[in-house]
Amino acid sequence: MNGYQYSCSLCGVTVKGPLAYTCPQCGDQGLLDIQYDYRKVKELGWCMKGNFSAPARYCRLLPLDSEYNDADMPVSVGNAPLIRLRTWEKQFGQSSVSLLDDTREPTASFKDRASVIASLKARELGESVVTCASTGNAGSSMAGINAAFGLSTRIFVPEKAPIAKLTQIITFGATVFRIRGTYDNAYDLCQVVARKQGWYNRSTGYNPVLLEGKKTAAFEIYEKCGVPDRVYVPVGDGCIIAGIYKGFQDLVALGVCQEFPFIVGVQADGSAAYCRAVENGFAMQTVKASTIADSISVDLPRVFSQAIRIAQSGHGSFISVSDSEILNAQKQLAACCGVFAEPAAAAAAAGFIRDKQSGVLSGREKVVLLITGNGLKDVQSALSGVALPEPIEPNPQSVDMILTKKRQE
Amino acid sequence: MNGYQYSCSLCGVTVKGPLAYTCPQCGDQGLLDIQYDYRKVKELGWCMKGNFSAPARYCRLLPLDSEYNDADMPVSVGNAPLIRLRTWEKQFGQSSVSLLDDTREPTASFKDRASVIASLKARELGESVVTCASTGNAGSSMAGINAAFGLSTRIFVPEKAPIAKLTQIITFGATVFRIRGTYDNAYDLCQVVARKQGWYNRSTGYNPVLLEGKKTAAFEIYEKCGVPDRVYVPVGDGCIIAGIYKGFQDLVALGVCQEFPFIVGVQADGSAAYCRAVENGFAMQTVKASTIADSISVDLPRVFSQAIRIAQSGHGSFISVSDSEILNAQKQLAACCGVFAEPAAAAAAAGFIRDKQSGVLSGREKVVLLITGNGLKDVQSALSGVALPEPIEPNPQSVDMILTKKRQE
Repeated sequence: MNGYQYSCSLCGVTVKGPLAYTCPQCGDQGLLDIQYDYRKVKELGWCMKGNFSAPARYCRLLPLDSEYNDADMPVSVGNAPLIRLRTWEKQFGQSSVSLLDDTREPTASFKDRASVIASLKARELGESVVTCASTGNAGSSMAGINAAFGLSTRIFVPEKAPIAKLTQIITFGATVFRIRGTYDNAYDLCQVVARKQGWYNRSTGYNPVLLEGKKTAAFEIYEKCGVPDRVYVPVGDGCIIAGIYKGFQDLVALGVCQEFPFIVGVQADGSAAYCRAVENGFAMQTVKASTIADSISVDLPRVFSQAIRIAQSGHGSFISVSDSEILNAQKQLAACCGVFAEPAAAAAAAGFIRDKQSGVLSGREKVVLLITGNGLKDVQSALSGVALPEPIEPNPQSVDMILTKKRQE
Repeated sequence: MNGYQYSCSLCGVTVKGPLAYTCPQCGDQGLLDIQYDYRKVKELGWCMKGNFSAPARYCRLLPLDSEYNDADMPVSVGNAPLIRLRTWEKQFGQSSVSLLDDTREPTASFKDRASVIASLKARELGESVVTCASTGNAGSSMAGINAAFGLSTRIFVPEKAPIAKLTQIITFGATVFRIRGTYDNAYDLCQVVARKQGWYNRSTGYNPVLLEGKKTAAFEIYEKCGVPDRVYVPVGDGCIIAGIYKGFQDLVALGVCQEFPFIVGVQADGSAAYCRAVENGFAMQTVKASTIADSISVDLPRVFSQAIRIAQSGHGSFISVSDSEILNAQKQLAACCGVFAEPAAAAAAAGFIRDKQSGVLSGREKVVLLITGNGLKDVQSALSGVALPEPIEPNPQSVDMILTKKRQE
């Protein structure tokens, strides 16, 4: 049994488990942090050698009631490849650029890191139905991971959720409530129904175990390349970036590493609530979000109190990039290393390119980009940035014409 | 330097490398087999412990001129998770059912196992341009893997290649020749242009190194669970199943294992050239292919002489399943384990279900299914098998109505 406890990120009060969501005193704004018995973890060893899936390898730093092994996992989450971008290093004059490839998670999204902890927690609590509100990735992730665990899933999505993600959710056998309205409407309804039905609630910005699942990416970055100088992370609601920060907080608390990386949260220009908040003295700002990067399109950042601390502490900052910078980064990244990122994921790469071009980076920094979802989840957006070739007649002359045109470009 | 040589699968003559495609005497039908110096491999050890990517781990049994390590690889191919399907074991009364999850390769397709060997070989030969004909997956795979290797890619596809795969190819920066005509037209044109331009040709059923890349899945199955009783493999042109067979042939030749699994090639009813061939005394049959499973939709099976041997030797057989069995298997598989297979990949699962229901399996066999591509590559087909839910008003009553309806179903 791990030693961990929940405490309110606003008032600091300890909140009793095993089932805990937000602070009873502060309400829904009072997100819970999770602290561990670092002395005990240090004694036992912070990672379980010989295991590769993230929840097994890092179970001593997760809010779980048992130690787990890979053999306990019906699904293999994490252990994402860290890929060195030698072409970009030369092209941009940067000493070290790598990406952590979370397009290769079971449902092709970083969200699987959180979902697998939610499924494990639900199983520990004896819950059989898990629910969440989602713009797409969280829902498809929860449905897929829950299917592997043999748990039932109920997902609330806005009517306009992307078809590929919706298809995943349904094919994984989840019940879908497709709401006439926005993500916020879906979120609010999920909260009401989950309470009424007694379902285990995995919604982001409410369930404290998700951020702990997401922090495993920080552990993997550390194990694969030490502490980078800069990590670029796509930011919508802020849960992923808060998770990365928490991961390095744990490592520093344990004395595994001594310093933090500088964490850059990359938002879309049309969905830049954190950038606005930093300009306004760290006060939460709601925006009317509109961007091609659906996974980071967020009006109301629901993990605000935990993510904004990164900028307040000086361990990071927030920047925003345009949709055309995102689509350009998506193409450039795919062509340089064969990783096809969905627009939200490509935002991390766009942030790096922006910082490089504006002279923020000296060239000596070790940089890591977090690539959080597969471009196959949103083929339409990728298509809007490239031209489908016209069909040609099946003869060598047609081929020659295209090759000549290419050479002239 | 590995000891290996090319020999014709028809006349047996040795063909000189380093660049070798088909037998100069037998022409395009004379596919080349590759033999290794098994005594030497036995001495050195058949797999390179400590490496995880397939081309590094198994480099001594690949047609490569050097030994490689994971650090030499700009992309991480193979080491796919073997997932135990406990729900199906109970549901179908089968003692052991697992799947090898190749949906999680870099471009979300099994073809990456072949492409990475083609890229390595092209680099060894000093080639800078690689080409192939493709219905979609081979091309998107080659484009993505080549991008990681910094090589140029030229892909010939039929006009009707699926949009998601086409989008991948273009985003990876490859030049695409979209041919007015069928895959066969694209294939023939690719052969002509590749010769004329001197491009390295990765087309299936022509380049002998592909099958060697594909056999690494057999090595992984063996390392993860020993020799299964039955392996179910989707079959179109026959290259994957021939690769699996070759992998076990190598292991038996080395004395690593003593017996073969029984390999079941699963075709779509509308594209069942191998099933027809078996009925006709193992003589090649051309069909007019039509199936929802685009990746195994093949008129003319181009790896015939190598794949048909599986049935001739008694080490396997070919069966076919309907499109509706494929779509049903896709849904059942996704809901039982969270793996979303494209239709061609789901055919393997459909073959297992068919054999189970028709009493071919006793229940005591250890079964492995090869899941070769991600359902995100063909969302339209998956959608044709499920119903998108109608949007509902954002209130608990709408949710109750859906739950009541579900209970009544």
